[in-house]
Amino acid sequence: MTDYPGFAFEVTRTVTADPDWPSAARTGVLTTPHGTVQTPAFIFCATRGAIRGVLPAQAKAEGTQFVLGNTYHLMLQPGAERIAEMGGLHRMMGWDGPMLTDSGGFQIFSLGQGSGAKEIKGNRNSTRDPSLLRIEEEGATFRSYIDGAKITLTPEDSIRIQRGIGADIILVLDECTPYHVDRNYTANSMALTHRWAERSIAEFGKAEEGSAGPQALYGITQGGVYEDLRRESAEFTAAQPYFGYAVGGCLGGDAAEMDEVVKIAMAPLNAATPVARPIHLLGVGSVRDVWNGAAKGIDTFDCVNPTRLARHGSAYIRPGLGETEDGRDFINLKNARFRDDDGPLDPECDCATCTSVSRAYVHHLVKASEINAGQLLAVHNVRFMNRLMQAVRDAIAADDYAARWKHWVEG
Amino acid sequence: MTDYPGFAFEVTRTVTADPDWPSAARTGVLTTPHGTVQTPAFIFCATRGAIRGVLPAQAKAEGTQFVLGNTYHLMLQPGAERIAEMGGLHRMMGWDGPMLTDSGGFQIFSLGQGSGAKEIKGNRNSTRDPSLLRIEEEGATFRSYIDGAKITLTPEDSIRIQRGIGADIILVLDECTPYHVDRNYTANSMALTHRWAERSIAEFGKAEEGSAGPQALYGITQGGVYEDLRRESAEFTAAQPYFGYAVGGCLGGDAAEMDEVVKIAMAPLNAATPVARPIHLLGVGSVRDVWNGAAKGIDTFDCVNPTRLARHGSAYIRPGLGETEDGRDFINLKNARFRDDDGPLDPECDCATCTSVSRAYVHHLVKASEINAGQLLAVHNVRFMNRLMQAVRDAIAADDYAARWKHWVEG
Repeated sequence: MTDYPGFAFEVTRTVTADPDWPSAARTGVLTTPHGTVQTPAFIFCATRGAIRGVLPAQAKAEGTQFVLGNTYHLMLQPGAERIAEMGGLHRMMGWDGPMLTDSGGFQIFSLGQGSGAKEIKGNRNSTRDPSLLRIEEEGATFRSYIDGAKITLTPEDSIRIQRGIGADIILVLDECTPYHVDRNYTANSMALTHRWAERSIAEFGKAEEGSAGPQALYGITQGGVYEDLRRESAEFTAAQPYFGYAVGGCLGGDAAEMDEVVKIAMAPLNAATPVARPIHLLGVGSVRDVWNGAAKGIDTFDCVNPTRLARHGSAYIRPGLGETEDGRDFINLKNARFRDDDGPLDPECDCATCTSVSRAYVHHLVKASEINAGQLLAVHNVRFMNRLMQAVRDAIAADDYAARWKHWVEG
Repeated sequence: MTDYPGFAFEVTRTVTADPDWPSAARTGVLTTPHGTVQTPAFIFCATRGAIRGVLPAQAKAEGTQFVLGNTYHLMLQPGAERIAEMGGLHRMMGWDGPMLTDSGGFQIFSLGQGSGAKEIKGNRNSTRDPSLLRIEEEGATFRSYIDGAKITLTPEDSIRIQRGIGADIILVLDECTPYHVDRNYTANSMALTHRWAERSIAEFGKAEEGSAGPQALYGITQGGVYEDLRRESAEFTAAQPYFGYAVGGCLGGDAAEMDEVVKIAMAPLNAATPVARPIHLLGVGSVRDVWNGAAKGIDTFDCVNPTRLARHGSAYIRPGLGETEDGRDFINLKNARFRDDDGPLDPECDCATCTSVSRAYVHHLVKASEINAGQLLAVHNVRFMNRLMQAVRDAIAADDYAARWKHWVEG
């Protein structure tokens, strides 16, 4: 089962160690039955089977390599069986490139259907959503956000559901712990996640024949903010017959803490892995976090922000340009300062939006609540993330990581 | 002033008279400074400077030739001066093809900011909107739907505003009478519209130097449902130095009555016009109405339905296919019968949506309130209208109008 026909991961280049900037950054090529991905790469969220505001052809035209469907949303609507009947999510949504699904756990454990403000800020580290009813050895029980039905998701269910959805890469179910849980809770949760992982692997081993096509399994490392637990989880995970890994669980309360936790999660994972395996960082996608994560050997990232920011009127721009405050990586086009701004959303961008319309026009559309504002911004934000990942890959290829990090993040 | 540099209209073919199907249908080529239009053609509404749910490149890829901006909405937000500062609406919205603006009158006289149900059914023939305050010789006074400000729009204002917006073809301000007004009201309204037309023409004559580029002026015929008034208005309009005409005012209470009113409006207009001039039918766009209008010599149509229906989950299909009830020309994808339908929205369509995803997928997106449903449907509906117009042009070219009308409208 450690053999995944149709899948491969090859590291093509690593950064030379620099005493001022220790980096495990690497470029690679991830091969799937639906094509290859140049890594580090960004995976765009198609939560319910659609990248919000961007059609697949537009996403591809702007350089998108990889998309992600959310098992939690898709299992509830339209349901994995219906997706399987439609030929799997690739065919259903008209995306023929590489695709990943998460296990459903993150949404069950952490994500409520929050307010707009909550949506913008995210709530990765917030307390439990009240829709989570209980976590037991068997699985997690929650209320459907659609109709309030009580549903138990087991590790085996998650694998079977992801088989039906048919993404190239699927994830094991983990317990995603909230921020501020203590060491004891985290250790017990990690142990539960490891037992769930073994059940997931067993289910994955027998379920292949019911699948839409070949799939590869990723494990998830846990251990919260505790270095010894992260090491223990990394060693457990590296010993399993996974194709790749995801770094999960609590990553700390702010960007600096996350950077530290990713470091303590990645070091033992890299050390324990004899051959290169692709590593995904779940739910992380700011400019700074991508540069910092890639520096620690992260190969893929995902985040809802490109389309979420777009829906709220914002366009990514390079923080190093100096046009944003507080190190932000986006501008909000609703701001009156853009009312007469004849320039493109992002002076450095070659996307369909930036090459055709101005900030003043998008400002007008945002003010008028026109849905095309979200479309134009989403197209740009997709292109921006793909340009960001290209810049990271180029920095690795040119062995010039520290300087380009600074250019992008600080200017 | 009857000379419009950069503009031309040439009739390329007419239908041979058929005693069972008298038709004035014709194909033509309308030349503007932003390119040519094969007529009969559909003009897509970009009300606030955006075709809702469809970006200009997508609209063009689906065969769109011509777009329309609404002076009423644009004068209020972002304002004609700002549009002029952005280089005109073409440049602002990234559309480099032919464009028309209406005068602003229709929205002032007839269109409230209605409910969803009202939006779907339209309210062309409803009573006055309460935002209209008064109609005087000088112009019409109304309250802005944005901030409630009291605004008077004169015929001269409308021309100046449309100069700033910079569409290729602009319209004179008319009083658009509601349904059920009597002959006396209609006659007085028509006379006012004719006096406003003369003022519009005078303003157009002196204002050219302030414009973003060459523009051509269309007159509007009135006369409501009264044959003698329609004749009088047609003769007045044909005597003015217009480049083209629009058929305006009350067209009756239902499709059959509209058909009759268009006939009595068109006959004297065609008779009074020594050289071919393009004729636009305002706010009409169902499959049946397009075939019937083109049969009477209408060259261009506009209607908000392609994008409006899309926002409400509906896809145009040919009524003659027999899949709809009551002669409708669309299906609503929210309907449970599409839940497992693996076919394209429209089995006859070659658009980006129909060639990539199924009815079942769009049903899922509509149910999940995903904005991509509206995008996918809008792309299809735009393509559908362009295919419809191609079919009308082909029917004229093949001299086979009656049979193809039946194929499309009745099956």
